[in-house]
Amino acid sequence: MKLTIHVTLKPGVLDPQGKAIEHALSGLGFEGVHGARVGKLIELDVDEGTSDADLDAMCRKLLANTVIENYRIQRA
Amino acid sequence: MKLTIHVTLKPGVLDPQGKAIEHALSGLGFEGVHGARVGKLIELDVDEGTSDADLDAMCRKLLANTVIENYRIQRA
Repeated sequence: MKLTIHVTLKPGVLDPQGKAIEHALSGLGFEGVHGARVGKLIELDVDEGTSDADLDAMCRKLLANTVIENYRIQRA
Repeated sequence: MKLTIHVTLKPGVLDPQGKAIEHALSGLGFEGVHGARVGKLIELDVDEGTSDADLDAMCRKLLANTVIENYRIQRA
């Protein structure tokens, strides 16, 4: 079973990587870029029987730092 | 205008980060994880009038390494 986990920074958390992208884009001459935020996209291939509880635990224990990040599980 | 750019490794490209996640998950006792691949999720806030050509150029010039990565632009 394939699924994708979207890990994004919580609103209000500083994103230096996003800031760097923003400045680099304007440095390359792209106008009209008002913000950029960077997150992770984790594609997992797991057994069919993997429960939602297990997936949540994987996210909480390893894949996302829930202090500063949100995660969303998207089934294929 | 908000949009999200999904940057993923091309099939066949080695993903050490994904491998590390796979091993860490099994080390934490999660069975049935057969694969993990990590990509980037870039949320951009750009002017309404930004053209598809400009967005493509942003991806090709900065946001994705098109030698080893694919990108997909998803409008909000």
